[in-house]
Amino acid sequence: MNYNEQYDFYRRAIEETLQAIVPCDVPQPLQDAMRYSLLAGGKRLRPVLLIASYAMLKEDFTEALPFAAALEMVHTYSLIHDDLPAMDNDDLRRGRPTCHKVYGEGMAVLAGDGLLSLAFETMADSAHPKAFDAMKELAMRCGTRGMIAGQCKDLQAEETGGDEETLHYIHLHKTADLLTAPIVMGLTLAGADEKQLAAGREYGRNLGMAFQIIDDILDVIGDEKTLGKSIGKDQEENKCTWTRIYGLEKAREDAQKYTDMAAESLKIFQNQGNFLKILAQRALVRVQ
Amino acid sequence: MNYNEQYDFYRRAIEETLQAIVPCDVPQPLQDAMRYSLLAGGKRLRPVLLIASYAMLKEDFTEALPFAAALEMVHTYSLIHDDLPAMDNDDLRRGRPTCHKVYGEGMAVLAGDGLLSLAFETMADSAHPKAFDAMKELAMRCGTRGMIAGQCKDLQAEETGGDEETLHYIHLHKTADLLTAPIVMGLTLAGADEKQLAAGREYGRNLGMAFQIIDDILDVIGDEKTLGKSIGKDQEENKCTWTRIYGLEKAREDAQKYTDMAAESLKIFQNQGNFLKILAQRALVRVQ
Repeated sequence: MNYNEQYDFYRRAIEETLQAIVPCDVPQPLQDAMRYSLLAGGKRLRPVLLIASYAMLKEDFTEALPFAAALEMVHTYSLIHDDLPAMDNDDLRRGRPTCHKVYGEGMAVLAGDGLLSLAFETMADSAHPKAFDAMKELAMRCGTRGMIAGQCKDLQAEETGGDEETLHYIHLHKTADLLTAPIVMGLTLAGADEKQLAAGREYGRNLGMAFQIIDDILDVIGDEKTLGKSIGKDQEENKCTWTRIYGLEKAREDAQKYTDMAAESLKIFQNQGNFLKILAQRALVRVQ
Repeated sequence: MNYNEQYDFYRRAIEETLQAIVPCDVPQPLQDAMRYSLLAGGKRLRPVLLIASYAMLKEDFTEALPFAAALEMVHTYSLIHDDLPAMDNDDLRRGRPTCHKVYGEGMAVLAGDGLLSLAFETMADSAHPKAFDAMKELAMRCGTRGMIAGQCKDLQAEETGGDEETLHYIHLHKTADLLTAPIVMGLTLAGADEKQLAAGREYGRNLGMAFQIIDDILDVIGDEKTLGKSIGKDQEENKCTWTRIYGLEKAREDAQKYTDMAAESLKIFQNQGNFLKILAQRALVRVQ
């Protein structure tokens, strides 16, 4: 399989898992609101990263799928809450009206809470011997010193404008933490040793920085229809972005730098690291 | 120690744990918002239930304290989100302005998300051999077929009025699930057998039903100052409560009935069950 076929293969397995993940006895309309946001498509980047990391060491990734689904649920919960009027106030997400636009704000708060809880419930239901370690990694990365810390600084920076230090903090925690979690979780579940885990952590951090910088660039040069979300919003809201602090040219250079560093981190995995290497490079193409 | 001394002994140990539980490197004002709501006092009922259940089987409850703190964090997160304008729209909680009144809605959403995540992080950091089982119980009870399911039905019932079936569903999930979790978690951590766990589950469910019915009654006959929260709100908002569906007299009878059943469930623990028996009976006194 070439890269695209491989990505689609992983993504189809993930979609199938996600389709069945919200239990049928969850009351309506909560069940619908959770499914609406979770099944809105998207690249499924985080779960693909988890499966691909797992697959570097072990071919049959079936037992990793519940953890991949948990990651997508955590990501989706963060988007639902982030889109709320009290936060980023977004009407459009993945090309469709945001959750609170369709189900109301109260239900959107609950749908987010529900997805976060279901993520932990799903992992806790797994009999995988490394389930506890994977949960520990995700709890830390999505928590108050991880993703939520990044969101908090992001929210604050809208008022103060933010500086270089704040920018790095936001990108590291708001984005890179939830791209590092899948790598570490996938490797952990597949039985990686400490050296492999360290390389995975390095890759995740560099990939995360590159992705958020690319996202910042696309908010300036991108096309709303292709992206499926509102653009130009960062500038409107005085967001602390790479382009605002460093300008478009340096943003492009740094996106390249972090992408190269991400690829470099994968050396230890030799040919098994090819998929994740290409994945990092493909994102960069969009802003070149 | 008599009952009150015992309760205070447990509560002091829990307060001390909670004081130190929000990490100092969580960014401001998120850290403050989390502490503001978490350290607002209150009876600490859920963590006390966990410690007391653990103490029925094992005297030194030190290793159970992080789990007790996790429960209080889950409870507090649910209150913060429940108080939001899009949900119950409450200005007063534990005698003080609600989290979003002080820190704004966006920060209140994040503080809730942060406390839920920190609850799982705290449990995952524990080296207790039963940590995974305790997490599993909490994830299920606080999730989309537990507490959140109850909140969803509660939110809906404001529009439809709700019927008997809805009422039982709401009380069972919105309240009883998060009072059953501490019992099962405490017993699990202390190494209980299946018979003891079944008795604990029974006690938790009955206690939970009794407590929510008592809460419904207090919303009708209670005093705002003593309770530290707004009263009469249930009626105003057409909430699905025991008093509205069954009337005040039957509500009092049923509170008595569930309290008796809770006490009965503890038989298997003999004298070790005395504290939890009195705990159930003390609540009832407030509405007699």
